[in-house]
Order: sequence, then C-alpha cells, then structure tokens
Amino acid sequence: MSDIANTPAPPYYAVIFSSHLIADDKGYDKGYAAMAERMVELAATQPGFLGIESARENLGITVSYWESLEAIRQWKSNAEHQEAQRLGREQWYSSFRVRVARVEREYGV
Amino acid sequence: MSDIANTPAPPYYAVIFSSHLIADDKGYDKGYAAMAERMVELAATQPGFLGIESARENLGITVSYWESLEAIRQWKSNAEHQEAQRLGREQWYSSFRVRVARVEREYGV
Repeated sequence: MSDIANTPAPPYYAVIFSSHLIADDKGYDKGYAAMAERMVELAATQPGFLGIESARENLGITVSYWESLEAIRQWKSNAEHQEAQRLGREQWYSSFRVRVARVEREYGV
Repeated sequence: MSDIANTPAPPYYAVIFSSHLIADDKGYDKGYAAMAERMVELAATQPGFLGIESARENLGITVSYWESLEAIRQWKSNAEHQEAQRLGREQWYSSFRVRVARVEREYGV
C-alpha cells in the first residue's frame, strides 16, 4: 500500500513517472507487478532516496522523491533498474512519460 | 479516464497533489467524485493550464501541469476551487500533500 511520502522541507527533486500498460489490468503479465514492487524496494535502498508514492487506475502514476539530481542519475543507472527499464519499454508499457522536477513548495495536513 | 498529459518542452510547473480519503472507496461521499471531476474540467479552462493526470487506489495522486507559478497561484485562488479546497479539508481528505515543482527534464515514448 502506498502512503503519502514524508518528505523534508524543499528544495528536493521529484521523478514523476506516468504510464499505460500494454494490456488491461486483468491481462497484464504477472511479472510486471513483481517487478514494480521490487523497484520500490530497491529505490528505497538508494542514496538520496526520500520517498515514493504510487497509484494506478487506467493510468499509473509513480512519484519518487530524491535529495538531488545526482541521486536520480545514480538510480537511473542502477543495473537492476536498467534491466527493469528495458523490460518496461519492450514488454509492459504502451506509453510512458518521465518528468524530473525540482520541488519548491510543499504544504498539507 | 485520465491519459498522459501532452506537455510542451520544459521548463514548466507541476502541482503534485497526493491524498487519502477519509472513508474507503465504497463509503466515500458521492459528492466527492462529482467535485473531483468538476475540478478537472474547471482547471482545463484556466490560463496557463497544460494538462492533468490522475489515479487513485488507496492513495490518490493528481498531477496538474502549468506554464508558470503565476498560473498556479491564480488557479489556487479561483473561487469555485477555493470552495472545493475547503470541502476537501473539512469533509473528504484524512490527509493530503501539495507539492509545487519546476519540471526541468522530460522524456518518454
């Protein structure tokens, strides 16, 4: 279960990952769910990781939070993550968009 | 149905809105769904609006995209949106977080 990330005071960085799976929810490869769960676990062990939030209906949105652009660069180049990115492009996603953003303000209850 | 927003080349701004509803999906006030849908429609008519993406499982994530911080400020102060914000705080959300971020890079397929 994804919860609201308990991020520190800004500035920090967000990677907004939006995706559509090739098949619908019932049909998609079981390997996808396991991979997605593994990537959340793996991200949490990386230097500079601050938190992650995820939800999927038809569209899936995962936002991960990081201390710096360098931390994001390292996570993107992680070997196991690179293999997951390759599988995503080749097998799982019909479309996706990755946006790297600098969080400047934050508020909430 | 939410789709991947067709945003222009960065830089632009993102408002990442993460929330938990007070009741579970089956129990929540029907007014919430109508309000959420209306806010998406209303946001799309605002100056500087670039797109919106939304998904909810247990956690809800809505990311709206804007040309400038000024466009975000105007949307936040829109009268009908202010009323929705008040209802959200008082009736619908057990917790939420709003993050305003500057999108610096974007890629995808």
